[in-house]
Amino acid sequence: MELPAPEQLKQSLYVPNKTLMGPGPSNCTQRVLDSLSNPVLGHMHPECFEIMDDIKAGVKYIFQTKNAATMCISGSGHAGMETAFVNLVEDGDVVLLGCTGLWGHRAAEMVKRLNGDVRYVESRSGRSLSLKEIEFAFEGHKPQVFFIAQGDSSTGILQHQLKEIGELCEKYNCLFVVDTVASLGGVEFLMDAWKVDMAYTGSQKVLGAPSGITPVSFSDRAIARIKARKSYVKSYYFDALLVGQYWNCFDTPRIYHHTISSTLLYGLREALAQICALGRRNVIHRHQECSHRLQCGVEEIGLEMFVTKASDRLPTVNTIKVPAGVEWRKVSQYAMRKYKLEISGGLGPTAEQVFRIGLMGENATYERVDLVLNILHEAIQSTKVVEKSKI
Amino acid sequence: MELPAPEQLKQSLYVPNKTLMGPGPSNCTQRVLDSLSNPVLGHMHPECFEIMDDIKAGVKYIFQTKNAATMCISGSGHAGMETAFVNLVEDGDVVLLGCTGLWGHRAAEMVKRLNGDVRYVESRSGRSLSLKEIEFAFEGHKPQVFFIAQGDSSTGILQHQLKEIGELCEKYNCLFVVDTVASLGGVEFLMDAWKVDMAYTGSQKVLGAPSGITPVSFSDRAIARIKARKSYVKSYYFDALLVGQYWNCFDTPRIYHHTISSTLLYGLREALAQICALGRRNVIHRHQECSHRLQCGVEEIGLEMFVTKASDRLPTVNTIKVPAGVEWRKVSQYAMRKYKLEISGGLGPTAEQVFRIGLMGENATYERVDLVLNILHEAIQSTKVVEKSKI
Repeated sequence: MELPAPEQLKQSLYVPNKTLMGPGPSNCTQRVLDSLSNPVLGHMHPECFEIMDDIKAGVKYIFQTKNAATMCISGSGHAGMETAFVNLVEDGDVVLLGCTGLWGHRAAEMVKRLNGDVRYVESRSGRSLSLKEIEFAFEGHKPQVFFIAQGDSSTGILQHQLKEIGELCEKYNCLFVVDTVASLGGVEFLMDAWKVDMAYTGSQKVLGAPSGITPVSFSDRAIARIKARKSYVKSYYFDALLVGQYWNCFDTPRIYHHTISSTLLYGLREALAQICALGRRNVIHRHQECSHRLQCGVEEIGLEMFVTKASDRLPTVNTIKVPAGVEWRKVSQYAMRKYKLEISGGLGPTAEQVFRIGLMGENATYERVDLVLNILHEAIQSTKVVEKSKI
Repeated sequence: MELPAPEQLKQSLYVPNKTLMGPGPSNCTQRVLDSLSNPVLGHMHPECFEIMDDIKAGVKYIFQTKNAATMCISGSGHAGMETAFVNLVEDGDVVLLGCTGLWGHRAAEMVKRLNGDVRYVESRSGRSLSLKEIEFAFEGHKPQVFFIAQGDSSTGILQHQLKEIGELCEKYNCLFVVDTVASLGGVEFLMDAWKVDMAYTGSQKVLGAPSGITPVSFSDRAIARIKARKSYVKSYYFDALLVGQYWNCFDTPRIYHHTISSTLLYGLREALAQICALGRRNVIHRHQECSHRLQCGVEEIGLEMFVTKASDRLPTVNTIKVPAGVEWRKVSQYAMRKYKLEISGGLGPTAEQVFRIGLMGENATYERVDLVLNILHEAIQSTKVVEKSKI
């Protein structure tokens, strides 16, 4: 018997216009949104390859790398993380995961599925890892791969000294993987100078493109390690040598690997073009200024940042302690209902404890900072009033 | 030293408007394209969940299934294929791959990476598999998983008797995986009635949405098999139990699994709404009528179909023998240069041997059939003339 067509698809598509000031996605510019309505292109058409080449050049710029193996994965940021490990880890490899929040543990989820030997080095709550802590862990674990999120979006912690960690990795002949999903464009990142072997970022954060396509880059050393694997890369879809061949990274003819989404290429290309036009250092500077203004404002309205040391604070995702007696969810709901503005709660280790305010791309302006501060303050006051009136 | 911003990103984005009559992607309707420019939504926002629910209902309808575990994978059709095997195959499992063209071999690429024990049952060139051939292979191999592409886009072969194969799979306690990427919407497919355990399709073919998001469905039997695994699913990103939890398939609270692309959700939702409005049987009928007209026209202009038996021909991707003395690439280039119309060459086993003409979604109309026939004829004549004049 024929199952009928669902009634709900007779309704029109409804998409509200929100101000997305959580940990991501952030709002896209109109230029990016407009580009998405362009006609679809074939995944092997020369015009599509040209856009991919543009993107590759833009990604090299934002990562500050000359790596040949710079490309995008057709998936979200999580796909970027999986691409790192599925290519670089073989059964039994020791993978040391730097944890300053959720993301080291998410990486563990992936590494254990690949039969990697998971080890951790965890920072104290609300702090980044010191070089000493990391060195000590290297001595103990002798890892083949070391992972750290430059910015952990669950805690709002910024990890420093990536250059020194890169040197440590080189000394231990260990591959250095950096998650820059939440940090890139908000803080400095120099892939080549810091000897990072694999980096990935999110399209939907500072870049301000839709999610679903993830810039990644592998150093020559990482590619050599992949080529020397004793076992297959356990994924076809995320195989860096195949994806890289499609992205024309290796001076071999392009192959058909999968049907890339030209729609997402348009958006990412335009987002990168905007960053290039502004200059990445200017973009970083603007994000830092905005975060500084937000932090001052937070103090002024009597709130406290979650990350103790100011220098440990990620400018893109700002974590603010939920004051005693306030329910974060009500505050968040108030802001969304009244202003269509997103203020998020915590995630993983910060669940129920913090507000997370994203200042990324379009939303990293003084106007937006002031807007979100005013709304946060009003929302907290109003939920307090409701509580009082209940008593 | 700072690497400079690339010059090429100062240029404007250039996207030509083509008629995509290769094996996919096909053209999107204006309704679908327009939807893509909507503002981005958060991946945990209720409006986003509502769109996901709409899509789930639409996917159940086009697959004709009541499977709870009906969802989308955030990746292309290849990601759908990988999702099938990474969830259903454990080390040493015997996986029998039905091959009527390239796709069984592509599946092998994935299964071997997962330590599955790959076996093949291959059809004779230009033909589908007979039930006898498949039964014989089942007796010999006793597979845990059987895979077949309902339509193989490399050869244009349609595999029949899926209902009977489903019964065979049940008899052997074997999971039945069907690739419907190129076939769905062009021929009948009844997931539940035919006892299919896992199916996936392409968004960018008959559905006419952008690629990058892939509808999949698992039967209860398949989900039970996944839950009874002795080893981890080797991918976090493609883990059906986690993705399904995000898609609210299992009566458990939704989790944050990855940042889904709301942009791609909009396009797929609108594409499904269009199919629902037309009725899937009408859509299938239209595709078959169009393919029939194309096949008649092919004969009229003195060409020959690649697939011998008319009933073995996939209506969505039509393969036509390249006549002796004609270079397919020149024909294809002529059509693209003069008319911005895509006619593809072969792939895998049909490379250099066939033209592939896609009649899918927007392009499955009599007008487009006549257009592509006229252009194909003109292109062949013109390349012949050039050859002659060279002599």
